Amino acid sequence: MSRYIVEITYCTQCRWLLRAAWLAQELLTTFEQDLYSVALRPGTGGIFEVRLNDELIFSRKEAGRFPEAKEIKQLVRDKVDPDRHLGHSDKTTTEN
Amino acid sequence: MSRYIVEITYCTQCRWLLRAAWLAQELLTTFEQDLYSVALRPGTGGIFEVRLNDELIFSRKEAGRFPEAKEIKQLVRDKVDPDRHLGHSDKTTTEN
Repeated sequence: MSRYIVEITYCTQCRWLLRAAWLAQELLTTFEQDLYSVALRPGTGGIFEVRLNDELIFSRKEAGRFPEAKEIKQLVRDKVDPDRHLGHSDKTTTEN
Repeated sequence: MSRYIVEITYCTQCRWLLRAAWLAQELLTTFEQDLYSVALRPGTGGIFEVRLNDELIFSRKEAGRFPEAKEIKQLVRDKVDPDRHLGHSDKTTTEN
């Protein structure tokens, strides 16, 4: 059984549930066999944070922007299955 | 902080992620203040199960069908905030 849990905390006041749910589905599609679960967690105050097994891997406040799905996939891949190639999600933004 | 966690386990082979994600968003919209998180968990073999704090509250195998969002909302409400009225989600199916 997979031991990796992703948690996406989103600001309910900002109505970021749809964005968080989109990202959850992107991760669950790419890492179907690798993740135990992806949790959506309501928050407040402009929060949009992604955690992998309680480790913060993306914070909107720190980055000053929202994450792209591909960069979260790369960060998760680096922990979960470092040798895997993610196809077009491994290209940099300027290559697309 | 809310102490209620919902977990939705869905069959990846059956491609029920979209259905599970829909239900997660329904619950997070209705119980924004009441739930710590709603987790989407990949499974196999036709599984579609909903747990509230590890207690199984709906099983597709047991029920012989998928749940309606309103009945899951009623089951969650009964545990989380029994006195709350859910509006049209409290009507029975035949009333709608």
